[in-house]
Amino acid sequence: MNPPADSSASASPAPLRLLDQIRSPDDVKGLCVEQLPQLAQEIREELIHVTAKNGGHVGPNLGVVELTIALHRVFSTPKDKFVFDVAHQGYIHKLLTGRQGEFFRKIRQSGGASGFLARDESVHDAFGAGHAGTALSAALGMASARDLKGTNEHVVALCGDAAFTCGITLEALNNVVASTKRLVVILNDNEWSIAKNVGAIAKSLTRLSTTRTYNKVHHDIEKFFLGLPGGPDMNRLWHKWKRETKDFFVESSLFEKFGLRYIGPIDGHNLEELIKNLEFARDTDTPVLLHVITEKGRGLEAARAHPEKFHGLGAFDPTTGEAKGGGPGTPPNYQDIFGKELVRLATADKRIVGITAAMPSGTGLNHLAAALPFQFFDVGIAEEHAALFAAGLATQGLKPVVAIYSTFLQRAYDPIIHDVALQRLPVVFCMDRAGLSPNDGATHHGLFDIAYLRPVPHALIMAPANEHDLTDMMATALAYDGPAFIRYPRGASTGQPAKSSRGLIPLGRAEVVRPGTDIVIWAIGTMVADALVLAESLATQDGLDVGVVNARFVKPLDRELLLRHAGNARLIVTLEDHVVTGGFGSAVLEAISDAGLSVPLERLGWPDAFIGHGSSQAALREAHGLSPACMLARVRRRLVSLTKSAAAASIHTQPQTVAV
Amino acid sequence: MNPPADSSASASPAPLRLLDQIRSPDDVKGLCVEQLPQLAQEIREELIHVTAKNGGHVGPNLGVVELTIALHRVFSTPKDKFVFDVAHQGYIHKLLTGRQGEFFRKIRQSGGASGFLARDESVHDAFGAGHAGTALSAALGMASARDLKGTNEHVVALCGDAAFTCGITLEALNNVVASTKRLVVILNDNEWSIAKNVGAIAKSLTRLSTTRTYNKVHHDIEKFFLGLPGGPDMNRLWHKWKRETKDFFVESSLFEKFGLRYIGPIDGHNLEELIKNLEFARDTDTPVLLHVITEKGRGLEAARAHPEKFHGLGAFDPTTGEAKGGGPGTPPNYQDIFGKELVRLATADKRIVGITAAMPSGTGLNHLAAALPFQFFDVGIAEEHAALFAAGLATQGLKPVVAIYSTFLQRAYDPIIHDVALQRLPVVFCMDRAGLSPNDGATHHGLFDIAYLRPVPHALIMAPANEHDLTDMMATALAYDGPAFIRYPRGASTGQPAKSSRGLIPLGRAEVVRPGTDIVIWAIGTMVADALVLAESLATQDGLDVGVVNARFVKPLDRELLLRHAGNARLIVTLEDHVVTGGFGSAVLEAISDAGLSVPLERLGWPDAFIGHGSSQAALREAHGLSPACMLARVRRRLVSLTKSAAAASIHTQPQTVAV
Repeated sequence: MNPPADSSASASPAPLRLLDQIRSPDDVKGLCVEQLPQLAQEIREELIHVTAKNGGHVGPNLGVVELTIALHRVFSTPKDKFVFDVAHQGYIHKLLTGRQGEFFRKIRQSGGASGFLARDESVHDAFGAGHAGTALSAALGMASARDLKGTNEHVVALCGDAAFTCGITLEALNNVVASTKRLVVILNDNEWSIAKNVGAIAKSLTRLSTTRTYNKVHHDIEKFFLGLPGGPDMNRLWHKWKRETKDFFVESSLFEKFGLRYIGPIDGHNLEELIKNLEFARDTDTPVLLHVITEKGRGLEAARAHPEKFHGLGAFDPTTGEAKGGGPGTPPNYQDIFGKELVRLATADKRIVGITAAMPSGTGLNHLAAALPFQFFDVGIAEEHAALFAAGLATQGLKPVVAIYSTFLQRAYDPIIHDVALQRLPVVFCMDRAGLSPNDGATHHGLFDIAYLRPVPHALIMAPANEHDLTDMMATALAYDGPAFIRYPRGASTGQPAKSSRGLIPLGRAEVVRPGTDIVIWAIGTMVADALVLAESLATQDGLDVGVVNARFVKPLDRELLLRHAGNARLIVTLEDHVVTGGFGSAVLEAISDAGLSVPLERLGWPDAFIGHGSSQAALREAHGLSPACMLARVRRRLVSLTKSAAAASIHTQPQTVAV
Repeated sequence: MNPPADSSASASPAPLRLLDQIRSPDDVKGLCVEQLPQLAQEIREELIHVTAKNGGHVGPNLGVVELTIALHRVFSTPKDKFVFDVAHQGYIHKLLTGRQGEFFRKIRQSGGASGFLARDESVHDAFGAGHAGTALSAALGMASARDLKGTNEHVVALCGDAAFTCGITLEALNNVVASTKRLVVILNDNEWSIAKNVGAIAKSLTRLSTTRTYNKVHHDIEKFFLGLPGGPDMNRLWHKWKRETKDFFVESSLFEKFGLRYIGPIDGHNLEELIKNLEFARDTDTPVLLHVITEKGRGLEAARAHPEKFHGLGAFDPTTGEAKGGGPGTPPNYQDIFGKELVRLATADKRIVGITAAMPSGTGLNHLAAALPFQFFDVGIAEEHAALFAAGLATQGLKPVVAIYSTFLQRAYDPIIHDVALQRLPVVFCMDRAGLSPNDGATHHGLFDIAYLRPVPHALIMAPANEHDLTDMMATALAYDGPAFIRYPRGASTGQPAKSSRGLIPLGRAEVVRPGTDIVIWAIGTMVADALVLAESLATQDGLDVGVVNARFVKPLDRELLLRHAGNARLIVTLEDHVVTGGFGSAVLEAISDAGLSVPLERLGWPDAFIGHGSSQAALREAHGLSPACMLARVRRRLVSLTKSAAAASIHTQPQTVAV
């Protein structure tokens, strides 16, 4: 055994764990093979310990412990490039590339490691991610760059089986052979993406991984090759491959159709087998796909038993697997309110169907799947297809409800414009995780949807201030003759008691939730609650008469009410859980300007920047100027400057007294 | 022969052409089989006659004459649903569904038929399109709706071979078997999409369609099946399929991997063979794919010889194939200026590479492909992969330039945000066809890009007023450390003489092209020329001092100059070839409001609606309030209302005299 070079740097007693000695991938290579299972065991304990506290993607990471160790034995980052699809399974890679210790233990918290890979976090992270299906394309770009430059590094794309339900991966797959001669693709097949995998490719993989059957087919194919009439070339090829791989090879796999050499299935928890096959793949002069079978959640009984639940979650008890927090008094999440209401609506109207892109639980559509399975579709990680499939359903009189997180709906932008809106088809899009997703960070925040949907003609865009608004908006959207969008945040609702006799909201009708005339705060979505706090502060501390409007609609805006306020108020404030560039405040500004009015407007929302991850909503708001105190200060500053400029502009007009 | 029911409606002598007797698909069914070749011949003549005059997708349509006739013999629209991918090959379908005559002869002109299918044009158009790769998804939605409703109509998706390079088609393909038991997919394989097809699937299709080889393989596979040790089921299956199809069947095609029954290849110009196979497909109780081989441009020698040129083009001479218009004095198109400049830049800097998504000629990247083939990539109709592949290249120090039309870049919206911008990778996106594409219409106008790109952090967004700006902006974009976007219109540049000693533009620096202080028109892109005309009218007719600014940058805006103008002018006018909602004018408005200024702003641009097709830019501008006269009238109206409100607001301030 070669001890790691820097293990002597510490003055404390020799560390008991191998993991503590790993400062870089070189240290992984420095261990002897016999030590690797112990390292794997220590990593599993660390993963469970940290994710039980911080939450995170525990299941996927527990599945790739041996695979990641093997990768770092065979390849050398940062020279070689690893591209992890989604990159939520990169925790072990972080532990082995100098990010263990306190930084890793604060993963997904302010000041700690990101829950995904990120180029600005480590030189060992060749490509950041967070959305699925991007690794093969990006890796192909790296391999092509290498070929053009004439360098010799290896590029390895690590994709889950679900990545192959995603169109981008398939577009890339179609381009592999035309683009490069050297690329290693690892298909990490745990038979689950997030939910149970769907579609023809998943079936095909299952067939491939059912070794007994395939060994038989393999045998038959060999016979076929050897029996070909004029097939000496085939014969030679077959023997060459058999000799080289010393392993099982299935000529007719889907991947072979795309020109990749297929090797598999490989036991993803057998380090020796992994290392041997990775070495072979590394030295192969043709694009190669290694089909590695892993077990999601391996080493944590609760995670093995409930793979969907343990895909990604908050803090949990590592023994029982029970989620922490969210006790009996916690209000239900928006996703569950949506899901249950959809069951109610779809029970009454059989034309209503729900569509998810591989996120039945996250979106709350699991309720529909359980209650009305024939009115439920999971199309895989295929947001574009989901929107288009819904468009097809809508042409035939069905009422599709597509539930996709705000950030992932970016994938469906063209079908939304070109197929749904242009044909004015009644498809309802429900966007969970609109606004911040604090622990996940920049790849998961839903901060752009208002801006990208607002220019779409015919679009109805709404955001509920609370759970009652949400259910009313669902009814309103389903009654609308065109594309409708509802955005709502991650997490718990307000916990208001159920109300009866609610229903359709008149299109474009806002709601005054607090009367007031000096300043009127136009807020959208759950920011209405923040607006009320802000209004109360301005009223009690500054003696102002402050109104609050629950705008409810981004499009169409309640112009009538807005222009009345704009004509009378000294200042309009807009408040949104969204970037200010092109957002809700911009819609308000356009409406006021187009009417020829010129009331001062203060737009509060997220700045024009990518917002990282943090421990909580509050921490990130504080950091970016959206805490209650910051917002109050901004409104006060604006009032001061208004008073000054009013005084400067005209000595004839007596400025009103403002307490600031 | 059964004469069409309504042929007696005309008082004129009996029509000489069969085509003139076709008022609906029933009339196609009423012809006897022997008449069909004559009908096909008449349709070809009509297609050539009309497209030679109006331009259009002549090549693709000439290839599917027999196929479309056969479809209407076997199926019955509107009960049965045809979904045409891209739908530029729908001209024959239009001719056979009651749209022939003057309406068809004005195709792509104001008041005439659309160049694509459209639900609001005919009940026979089950789904509109314009972008590629959508048909299979939409058709799957229709088939699923049928299955849920328990009705029995047929759904037929007609896809070109290139559709299978597109991720949406592949996502749908993965979902076919899980979604329905009955769907007819026609693969119209002309071995070309727009340019020569690329990728592994195209290769696979070529193998399939090389009948001699495949007949041999077929024979070998049959032997293999029959020789299987324990394979009586296989054996039975094989014979059943052989019996049913009475045709060539390749078990191991790519499509079989996705669970579709494969039938082909079929001669796409043999009506009898087409009809027989379509009837079989119609009556099959499993999703089936018919592989039909067609010849693009069949019946027009020039189109057969130059399939890419004749994919879609303007008016042409049907004998010589020469394009009309664009004589020796016509300035070069923006796409060619871009393409040639890129060759110059990429010759000097080998890190620069160009990427197209199946549009080398349309984007002007054909120049790069010819001059520097190793620095050129055509990835197929795969915009998402194109952007991600570029991101991968950029991480390795290359300088990728991705050339995608504005409307198609909507497909790459998520990779732009999640992969390129979030990692601040230096990828240059050049968007041709930004603004109107008059003859093509709503699916092809590039009217949303400013709005959807503006909220993206780190994005540099530019639009050239002329060809000199374009080449300067290319240099500026390549020097920028992040994602850069350049939008420019379809068609001819301004024809200015070449200038020397130009180069980088300081980031966010606008250019005053006409000084003036009463009104300042901030124009972006080629609208600067329109702004100068408008300014001149206001100056000479209304005696106003009107300035014009070539904004050049949408992001970052030249705030310093803008705020100076906003502080002094009576009115700011913005002018853009883009929707006003969230567009350039909105950026100007945000900047003015955020600075606490309140100058009146008139935003001129396209309204919040989908703009149809029309004969010309001028015709569509006239119809939507953007003609020179309309714009002049709007500015005058605004000035009048300003004068009135100024007078009303303060009797202390003497309003300036305004000649209106």
